[in-house]
Amino acid sequence: MSNESLQKEFAKVVGQDNVMTSESEMHAYSYDSAVLDQVSPAMVVRPTSSEALGQVVKLCNDNELKLTVRGAGTNLSGGTIPHPGGIVCLTTALNNILEINEEDLYAVVEPGVITAKFAAQVASKGLLYPPDPGSQAVSTLGGNVAENAGGLRALKYGVTKDYVMGVDFFDVNGELVKSGSRTVKCVTGYNLAGLMVASEGTLGVFEKLILKLVPPPKAIKSMMAEFDDVAAASQAVSAIIAAKIVPATLEFMDNFTIKTVENFRGAGLNTEAAALLLLEVDGHPAQVEDDAAQVQEICNKLGARQFTVAQDAKQRDAVWQARRDALPALARVKPTTVLEDATVPRSKIPDMMQALKRIAREYKLTIGTFGHAGDGNLHPTILTDKRDTQEWERVEKAIDEIFDVALDLGGTLSGEHGIGIAKSKFMHQEHGLAAIEYSRRMKSVLDPKDILNPGKMLGPLLA
Amino acid sequence: MSNESLQKEFAKVVGQDNVMTSESEMHAYSYDSAVLDQVSPAMVVRPTSSEALGQVVKLCNDNELKLTVRGAGTNLSGGTIPHPGGIVCLTTALNNILEINEEDLYAVVEPGVITAKFAAQVASKGLLYPPDPGSQAVSTLGGNVAENAGGLRALKYGVTKDYVMGVDFFDVNGELVKSGSRTVKCVTGYNLAGLMVASEGTLGVFEKLILKLVPPPKAIKSMMAEFDDVAAASQAVSAIIAAKIVPATLEFMDNFTIKTVENFRGAGLNTEAAALLLLEVDGHPAQVEDDAAQVQEICNKLGARQFTVAQDAKQRDAVWQARRDALPALARVKPTTVLEDATVPRSKIPDMMQALKRIAREYKLTIGTFGHAGDGNLHPTILTDKRDTQEWERVEKAIDEIFDVALDLGGTLSGEHGIGIAKSKFMHQEHGLAAIEYSRRMKSVLDPKDILNPGKMLGPLLA
Repeated sequence: MSNESLQKEFAKVVGQDNVMTSESEMHAYSYDSAVLDQVSPAMVVRPTSSEALGQVVKLCNDNELKLTVRGAGTNLSGGTIPHPGGIVCLTTALNNILEINEEDLYAVVEPGVITAKFAAQVASKGLLYPPDPGSQAVSTLGGNVAENAGGLRALKYGVTKDYVMGVDFFDVNGELVKSGSRTVKCVTGYNLAGLMVASEGTLGVFEKLILKLVPPPKAIKSMMAEFDDVAAASQAVSAIIAAKIVPATLEFMDNFTIKTVENFRGAGLNTEAAALLLLEVDGHPAQVEDDAAQVQEICNKLGARQFTVAQDAKQRDAVWQARRDALPALARVKPTTVLEDATVPRSKIPDMMQALKRIAREYKLTIGTFGHAGDGNLHPTILTDKRDTQEWERVEKAIDEIFDVALDLGGTLSGEHGIGIAKSKFMHQEHGLAAIEYSRRMKSVLDPKDILNPGKMLGPLLA
Repeated sequence: MSNESLQKEFAKVVGQDNVMTSESEMHAYSYDSAVLDQVSPAMVVRPTSSEALGQVVKLCNDNELKLTVRGAGTNLSGGTIPHPGGIVCLTTALNNILEINEEDLYAVVEPGVITAKFAAQVASKGLLYPPDPGSQAVSTLGGNVAENAGGLRALKYGVTKDYVMGVDFFDVNGELVKSGSRTVKCVTGYNLAGLMVASEGTLGVFEKLILKLVPPPKAIKSMMAEFDDVAAASQAVSAIIAAKIVPATLEFMDNFTIKTVENFRGAGLNTEAAALLLLEVDGHPAQVEDDAAQVQEICNKLGARQFTVAQDAKQRDAVWQARRDALPALARVKPTTVLEDATVPRSKIPDMMQALKRIAREYKLTIGTFGHAGDGNLHPTILTDKRDTQEWERVEKAIDEIFDVALDLGGTLSGEHGIGIAKSKFMHQEHGLAAIEYSRRMKSVLDPKDILNPGKMLGPLLA
């Protein structure tokens, strides 16, 4: 079919206004939040109904058009970068919260609902949707599920996967597949909803998500501990977990990040501290008191020079604003920001911190490290300029080495950012070739023309 | 290959002592805990190492031998009933706990480890493995994962799925596929570990499981509420959840079950109560006090005639022994016990209870109902005699109707017992044909000769 006829076909399905082909629009959808080359699609379509979404999938498959579905494009591994000349399908018009069930503690949403809007709506009903990825203000729930997004609260509450009760999705033929349930227990059929989580748009296109909600904690306490020594801070992380305390949040910031954040907004952080731990404990008021006291004792024992408890909502917000500023603040330092998320078992955080220091020195790079220390998911952030080809070569070597160290420590390539294009070539190092072959076999039969977000996760499949 | 040559091949792999072919042995492995016809295998093999397990899988695939892997055979949906003339592979010799990591809160086990033994070992290290299926004293962790076993604590702690961090499994060619991680966050590759959960031995053979552990609660309180009215008891269930209390356990027993349990062991239950709720709250001591008080207030408000709090470990054990006696006690009443587990959103428990009463009356059947009311997962238990063909016809109609009602109420065919052979013909009613087709496509490429526990979950695939 000619390009023009295709446009007409798509216009029939989604309406003329929702088919875009101009150069500037193609440019706008040629990248996401990963540091990767831009790739322009041939067309961007924006279905405004479930039915139209299914028809878009079918039209792409019938015409062997490569399809990349995206919401806000906050992806950090290139998962929403289109295939050259492919179709981008926007979920932004599929943004209805269909149900918030307060009795049975679940919600049903369309994939284009924005995470933070959803969380606020849930909160207004007196409930909690815990996953809080850094991009929550703009990211969509469909993207969160496709990437199994994490966030600050993952330590206690788990990640997006732990809140997906069901996914209705279109298979490559545009048939609607239902999986999971509105019940908290369900073993009917394969765990397809579980398989959809983190599948990066390569196995189906989400139509509807059933998400689990929980009662919110009755009390919350935020704390900040300052250390003169990175090793002591990272030992405190392990010691807190070993003491069987499960904070909602346990975040780390190194001195470089502290300084940069302070520079960015003047958050009142101590720029002389070698490392900060930002903590939040929540639950029953008495438990919160006990946990906070124990956390303070552990931090002091390990040599914290200062321990501050937020006294009110304003102070609490200041702590978390500082943490949320880490990435935007670092990103301003140099033209290119490479945000890594290789993850290790939490007891290996001290080893990982040491290795990062060595790698920065060896490759003469500026690395600011912050992140979810409590679940072993640090974000070493390399600040560089991709146009400086010599430095960029060193950056690539440093990334390789960060992966090697993480895997040697029993860790994983990606805790929450996904594989996408950025890490697909490293996959075999973690799970071996048999796992990739098994996955490719699945993909080959579920998407025989390889049109669903091709090249992501498993690398190129068809020549 | 002749039967004799095959035996020799298997003997080379697992040792002569671990190949069984006698009639009595074949009989012993011809059934599980579901009410279904017996099917004798041709051979039973018992590998004593991971390597041998992989070779068994390969040998079966090379020779197109149907393979059913089983642990204790406590399966309630026929998932461990072999294929006629197929191979049964026992995991009972693969029973090593390879690691309990107290710092990083995970364990690595072989599939044949017995659930309760594992839980006890974990408890001895001051940690908790929450999933506690009814058969835990004999069931194996491999079986628990293959069926996504639930249990009494699922309301607060979730089911087996929620504790599976990784699964290493043999694909049908005997290649070892690694999935998941020892880290709490991992998005490297497809969620194959999640796909293995509840896959009933049809997509791979487990070699090793990585299971999540949690810190145990500091305090526990067990309670019992007696009601004169089933409706009031089931309303109390909804009211407790609506009050944002999440008990660890919230179990229900109807009068018939109470009487039968009392008859069985003399547990001291009030045989005049129309219904009992058995509850446990756990967590921080202050939270436990608050939750218990609120639960009592709700039960009293809804007309509980008696509310008892266990005062010590002995009283607590008595409560839970009574609950655990429910199934064995009911099973003694008549020759055939059909234990159902259709599940509804918890707010629909009152509707489900009413429907069960009507169905028992309409089909003139004895149904004792007990189970996990807190998560909508009741166990209506039909007491019958399969040899009474007239009554058995009514039983089958009643089961059909229980499924219809559960699905009409937004529920699921099976909360925790699995699909196996027993429910595969009902699958399309819940998820539609597209979901079954999608699953069959997967199965067809991952197991092209259909040798991995054929006929389970998706029904017969190849003619």
